[in-house]
Amino acid sequence: MSADKNQFALTPPMGWNSYDYYDTTVNEAEVRANAEYMASHLLPYGWNYIVIDIEWYAVNAGSQRPEVQYIPFAKPAMDEYSRLQPDPARFPSSAGGRGFGPLADYIHSLGLKFGIHIMRGVPRYAAHLHTKVLGTGVTADQIADASSICPWNPDMYGVKNTPEGQAYYDSLLQMYADWGIDYIKCDDIAASKLYPGYPLFSRAEIAMLHRAIEKCGRPIVLSLSPGPASIEDAWFYEENANLWRVSDDFWDDWKALLHMFEYCELWQRHVSPGCYPDCDMLPFGIVGGGFKDERHTHFTFEEQKTVMSLWCIFGSPLMLGAEMTKMDPQTESLLTNRDLLSLLDPERFRRQVRRNADSAVWMSTARQAGGRLAVALFNLQDQEAEVSVSEDELFVPLPAQMKECWSGTHVCPVNGSITRKLPAHGAAVLIGC
Amino acid sequence: MSADKNQFALTPPMGWNSYDYYDTTVNEAEVRANAEYMASHLLPYGWNYIVIDIEWYAVNAGSQRPEVQYIPFAKPAMDEYSRLQPDPARFPSSAGGRGFGPLADYIHSLGLKFGIHIMRGVPRYAAHLHTKVLGTGVTADQIADASSICPWNPDMYGVKNTPEGQAYYDSLLQMYADWGIDYIKCDDIAASKLYPGYPLFSRAEIAMLHRAIEKCGRPIVLSLSPGPASIEDAWFYEENANLWRVSDDFWDDWKALLHMFEYCELWQRHVSPGCYPDCDMLPFGIVGGGFKDERHTHFTFEEQKTVMSLWCIFGSPLMLGAEMTKMDPQTESLLTNRDLLSLLDPERFRRQVRRNADSAVWMSTARQAGGRLAVALFNLQDQEAEVSVSEDELFVPLPAQMKECWSGTHVCPVNGSITRKLPAHGAAVLIGC
Amino acid sequence: MSADKNQFALTPPMGWNSYDYYDTTVNEAEVRANAEYMASHLLPYGWNYIVIDIEWYAVNAGSQRPEVQYIPFAKPAMDEYSRLQPDPARFPSSAGGRGFGPLADYIHSLGLKFGIHIMRGVPRYAAHLHTKVLGTGVTADQIADASSICPWNPDMYGVKNTPEGQAYYDSLLQMYADWGIDYIKCDDIAASKLYPGYPLFSRAEIAMLHRAIEKCGRPIVLSLSPGPASIEDAWFYEENANLWRVSDDFWDDWKALLHMFEYCELWQRHVSPGCYPDCDMLPFGIVGGGFKDERHTHFTFEEQKTVMSLWCIFGSPLMLGAEMTKMDPQTESLLTNRDLLSLLDPERFRRQVRRNADSAVWMSTARQAGGRLAVALFNLQDQEAEVSVSEDELFVPLPAQMKECWSGTHVCPVNGSITRKLPAHGAAVLIGC
Amino acid sequence: MSADKNQFALTPPMGWNSYDYYDTTVNEAEVRANAEYMASHLLPYGWNYIVIDIEWYAVNAGSQRPEVQYIPFAKPAMDEYSRLQPDPARFPSSAGGRGFGPLADYIHSLGLKFGIHIMRGVPRYAAHLHTKVLGTGVTADQIADASSICPWNPDMYGVKNTPEGQAYYDSLLQMYADWGIDYIKCDDIAASKLYPGYPLFSRAEIAMLHRAIEKCGRPIVLSLSPGPASIEDAWFYEENANLWRVSDDFWDDWKALLHMFEYCELWQRHVSPGCYPDCDMLPFGIVGGGFKDERHTHFTFEEQKTVMSLWCIFGSPLMLGAEMTKMDPQTESLLTNRDLLSLLDPERFRRQVRRNADSAVWMSTARQAGGRLAVALFNLQDQEAEVSVSEDELFVPLPAQMKECWSGTHVCPVNGSITRKLPAHGAAVLIGC
Repeated sequence: MSADKNQFALTPPMGWNSYDYYDTTVNEAEVRANAEYMASHLLPYGWNYIVIDIEWYAVNAGSQRPEVQYIPFAKPAMDEYSRLQPDPARFPSSAGGRGFGPLADYIHSLGLKFGIHIMRGVPRYAAHLHTKVLGTGVTADQIADASSICPWNPDMYGVKNTPEGQAYYDSLLQMYADWGIDYIKCDDIAASKLYPGYPLFSRAEIAMLHRAIEKCGRPIVLSLSPGPASIEDAWFYEENANLWRVSDDFWDDWKALLHMFEYCELWQRHVSPGCYPDCDMLPFGIVGGGFKDERHTHFTFEEQKTVMSLWCIFGSPLMLGAEMTKMDPQTESLLTNRDLLSLLDPERFRRQVRRNADSAVWMSTARQAGGRLAVALFNLQDQEAEVSVSEDELFVPLPAQMKECWSGTHVCPVNGSITRKLPAHGAAVLIGC
Repeated sequence: MSADKNQFALTPPMGWNSYDYYDTTVNEAEVRANAEYMASHLLPYGWNYIVIDIEWYAVNAGSQRPEVQYIPFAKPAMDEYSRLQPDPARFPSSAGGRGFGPLADYIHSLGLKFGIHIMRGVPRYAAHLHTKVLGTGVTADQIADASSICPWNPDMYGVKNTPEGQAYYDSLLQMYADWGIDYIKCDDIAASKLYPGYPLFSRAEIAMLHRAIEKCGRPIVLSLSPGPASIEDAWFYEENANLWRVSDDFWDDWKALLHMFEYCELWQRHVSPGCYPDCDMLPFGIVGGGFKDERHTHFTFEEQKTVMSLWCIFGSPLMLGAEMTKMDPQTESLLTNRDLLSLLDPERFRRQVRRNADSAVWMSTARQAGGRLAVALFNLQDQEAEVSVSEDELFVPLPAQMKECWSGTHVCPVNGSITRKLPAHGAAVLIGC
Repeated sequence: MSADKNQFALTPPMGWNSYDYYDTTVNEAEVRANAEYMASHLLPYGWNYIVIDIEWYAVNAGSQRPEVQYIPFAKPAMDEYSRLQPDPARFPSSAGGRGFGPLADYIHSLGLKFGIHIMRGVPRYAAHLHTKVLGTGVTADQIADASSICPWNPDMYGVKNTPEGQAYYDSLLQMYADWGIDYIKCDDIAASKLYPGYPLFSRAEIAMLHRAIEKCGRPIVLSLSPGPASIEDAWFYEENANLWRVSDDFWDDWKALLHMFEYCELWQRHVSPGCYPDCDMLPFGIVGGGFKDERHTHFTFEEQKTVMSLWCIFGSPLMLGAEMTKMDPQTESLLTNRDLLSLLDPERFRRQVRRNADSAVWMSTARQAGGRLAVALFNLQDQEAEVSVSEDELFVPLPAQMKECWSGTHVCPVNGSITRKLPAHGAAVLIGC
Repeated sequence: MSADKNQFALTPPMGWNSYDYYDTTVNEAEVRANAEYMASHLLPYGWNYIVIDIEWYAVNAGSQRPEVQYIPFAKPAMDEYSRLQPDPARFPSSAGGRGFGPLADYIHSLGLKFGIHIMRGVPRYAAHLHTKVLGTGVTADQIADASSICPWNPDMYGVKNTPEGQAYYDSLLQMYADWGIDYIKCDDIAASKLYPGYPLFSRAEIAMLHRAIEKCGRPIVLSLSPGPASIEDAWFYEENANLWRVSDDFWDDWKALLHMFEYCELWQRHVSPGCYPDCDMLPFGIVGGGFKDERHTHFTFEEQKTVMSLWCIFGSPLMLGAEMTKMDPQTESLLTNRDLLSLLDPERFRRQVRRNADSAVWMSTARQAGGRLAVALFNLQDQEAEVSVSEDELFVPLPAQMKECWSGTHVCPVNGSITRKLPAHGAAVLIGC
């Protein structure tokens, strides 16, 4: 039997992604510093992915900020086979054609896993220069689809669905496997509102990427961006990828968080081992540095608890957006709540019990008999309010005593019902004792 | 705790529906004859619902066929509280205001359950006559929404989402519970391509109906029509109903059957106890009599096996459309295959393994360890063809020996793969021994 | 040759409509009072239509305001042939089956023309009662289309496109011609945003109405509502009607007025004798009485001048919405500007010269050589601003001197350009001397 | 006053375009041969434009046919200022940087006008090479919009709406004016079904091009492609261009011709001097050579007469697609019918009288009194049929005698009506004597 991609990630990946803080600018020292922080502070709680986001191959990345995010028509770091390489100025250990290998080794030495962001396709630079494609007699212009570009990034052309196109993706994945990559976040490949009428235009490239992973001999987790994915395509995602984004880019904005409740309602039946609808990164702590907008997250602490409560009871991957070396203890406390994190288990059964303009209620149970019931209460209003749930809505009896995850207090149901007074945009998560 | 509607139907309902043969015209004797047939022939295999479809309240139903299916502006059988009653000419036992009570008693006496079709709303006749609403001080014109009609049937107005509107639905369900109804197929209430831009306009009426069932004291199964339901609304259906149609009306047409493979792909993760995406009725055997088009189904026998194979491995409800008293043994053999029917179990895990223009493959496993693997192979081509599946696609080992459900032959995998030569539009279902 | 409907209205109709002030409630005395006012004050300027708007047949019209605008399932005034009649309580002269004949006679005696609003279709009341259709052997239920209703008014069913359906419309138009009706505003028959995906579903009924007018022997002007009409259907409107609404219902709201500039841009080439894209009624002076919201128009005086300037240079029909007997001299001055009204001439060539977020400029010229150039300048900003136009944009020379219609001042171009300082939302109209 | 673009083409342009025969491959000798043919055979009838269509700058154009129409990532002929030049191998007279100047001189010497096709934007090649932009300090990468490409041609990037972007278009038009270009067909700039949800995304580039023409000092006619243009944008087209395509690419296919009747219905009020909704080229005679599909047009002779009849009575530009040097006399007779060509006059009033599945009827009258009436009858059926028109539909009297343009026969109305028996897909055009 060939590799079963569902075995590559038996629980939702938990890690750190460079984007929310660094935009395109992160360098090797910064990655190492964050990796070290994770290994020493968060690894015991299950956090173990370090992911470098977009344009690690770009020379002078970020130098035209704030006007231009991605400098067009620029010369990237690239090998002779049209494969992008780490910018050596930012990633010194990549010198001599070693790519991300040395950095991967270091991250692995900390007990962590290493992920990178890639853009769908072959560099435009390669296509216009007619550079080679490894293992084929063709050049990059012959595998590039001149009409397939990303609407928001100028780096790549899509790859044609041909044997030579597959060979290019195979050559990429072989290089990534050689480097020791554990996780690929491929962008411009999933659905986006930017493609009107073409919600999943790039099925062929997703399948090529999936096949290249199957061949590469390394269990590389595949995460697809951007979003929102259409649930009409759920089966295709489930067959070909491990993560796919259910929303647009998520930032520290209450409206976006409210919207995420809709997406979670929609995708709740689609969480299973190896298959993770992805609510996107956690814009907590200090973010925005590379965007020339360094700030403490706009989310209140209560809103951040709401994010964590929803992501966990839903079963989303957790990718921290903060610069970890600047993290305060309160932010860290959001990430180390073992009771809450236990709900990520994809084998649990989850169900949105109720959602309206004022509140939302979720429940989660272990499938095996005797498993603990969890209930999450969300106050969606802009002021303090009580949120209740009763056995009549859960259709299961409430335990005699439940523990509220965030406060640690114990709560006893009254008349088959639990009520909590919650701050504006706040959440409570109760787990049976 | 209040009643949990998921307890009302722990497995997909299996039964008979009058529509495919009788259109609007079925009468009491015909219903009894079919019920008797089911009790003596099919009940041992799990078939136990007898459902009377549309316009049992219509006087002279079908008399303007073939031009007019539903006679507009006609006076229906109705009680003083604006509630439709069985047409006494067709259902003599309903005389004296007893409604479907006596017929329900008879059906129950055979060990069967009894279902009826209803249209969303209150009769237009009642609204224009200003007749009473039980338990309220208002009349039908005051609960009717004059702008809410069915696009294809002239009988009803939608009911306003008000306490008096709820009271009307409560009075309906109380009457149905008194009669002994076990199953309601409510029409013009789920999504339809006939409502452009309004895929699920009638959420309020679905919720009113659901609440009325919860109050009525009887575990009445709720089935929603027409379709296709939008999967965007899956959670709402799962909370409020037991069955909802995933397709347009299904008839004996290969194109429609091909299309059903898409719907099953879409809804495969949404089958669970009490929640059944519904592939619609089985137009087998002799159908079309009431439509002035009596015929043997246009489906070949192979196509009918394909229908049964797909419905069962997917986990759809099974509602037979044939006139049972005219059923031939071959058709009956389709309905009594215990191996196949065992796959309906909603606790099984099901997955479409592959689908393209030529073939489709599904698998199904019991969630508990040691459960038997089932694999269904479908030939979607118009000529005989081989269809294969390998362990590489299943990600589980194939058993040393499998039994093909339809032929009873035993099959052994070769090199981790099974191949079957299938007739045009044919299917094979293999179950581990 | 048969009647050419374009001959029925060689210039855009100018008149008064009861809706903006009276909603459904207007009565005979009120109509007469307004007609008398028009005859004595406005007729010399070309205003000559008196139009009674919706539900003149409704008993107790307006009595459930403000909750309900149109009382559903009520018994209307109707003759034995399923034809609606004036409510005799409100229109006493209609007693004895004389309908609107006496009132028409009176309006004609003042030198005016008389119009009525009708709803597309046959009364629901008639269909459910099975009343007769004149000149046929059928009853109303047989011509009614049970699935064709108005989404916002409960009075009617659409009429089937059959010989009997045509006979019903013929019988209506014969009655209207007998009464002396000069103008019909038919509602629920043109496009509406309320019909998603069905921009002009009722072509057949428009054509039936058009044919009935051709047969009736009286030059009855046909105006279609609601809107916005799709310009894709322009030819069909031009062949079958005299007026069609280019917008939603227009009220005294600046956003709606801004939107009208878009509609006028769209339809500017479609004004010709007998064919009038219609910008809807002028909500000037005192409006809203029947809506339980009597008020002076929310439009400023400058905005009202902008309305008149745009409607006239575009060539729209002009239907006053004010209660005329309460009209102040300033409002009346808006309606009696002969220079401005001269621009209505459909033989003129009109062109939007420019439109952006800040300003709009229109021009209009007579087709014949030597005709006077007119230019309208509009300030779309919320504060005073200068608006200019130059010969470079007009492609014709500016006259040495132009007269500003509203102020009467004379203006001389400077360097081939004219600039006016305009108040917020204000307009200037310059005509060559 | 600045130049009025409507003065540049007071009647619909008539000419020849290289595309239908040559695809991308036409060379100088072939252009000259066609120009000479036009001058000697068609110029007396008003045909006077010679237009070179797409990719005159492409080296090895057509060499990858039939697989590839436009070779991607190739090096085009280009000057130092990022401006495309004629391929010197195909256009020898362009050597030495003289561009199309010598060829234009020759065409002018024949009494003809000279047009070229261009693609919206700046060459991708220039953007990736960072070549100069005349009169600015920037390079091509700085004016190129990396996200703006043509979906079907790989040559260009869109130009940003900035002063430097305008400077690039100005530099193009100055070069074209220097060459002596009379007509530009700009492609990938008008609406297309290929841009879902973006019917006219490129307003800014159209306006830049229009301004560049105004500045260049030469009356260059501007034609926009592809189509179909949305009539919602009619005013914008009328202000900025002379021709815009109302349909997709038109080829020799009856379905496409049937569809053109819909487009002509839609746009009939929008023909005026300088403003021409464009029905696209005439695929007559010998076409397809450069496409490796040389053939006599698939249109029957009757269908070609229908094309000419519709294009002329509608008032469309006429651009011949045939290789003229291979033209047979019958094809030429289609182009030299003076009666028919006289109907092109944009000052005429035109009206579709009727259109249904079986037939269409158009009329056309001169605006001035006493002008001759023309009537076109079209048989849309697949077999011979009679088509009639009566004064009742025309609303004008028929002359005592009319001349049928194609046959030259004279026809007298009978009882105010004319009837012609027409072959399948055939047409008759009658003009008052």
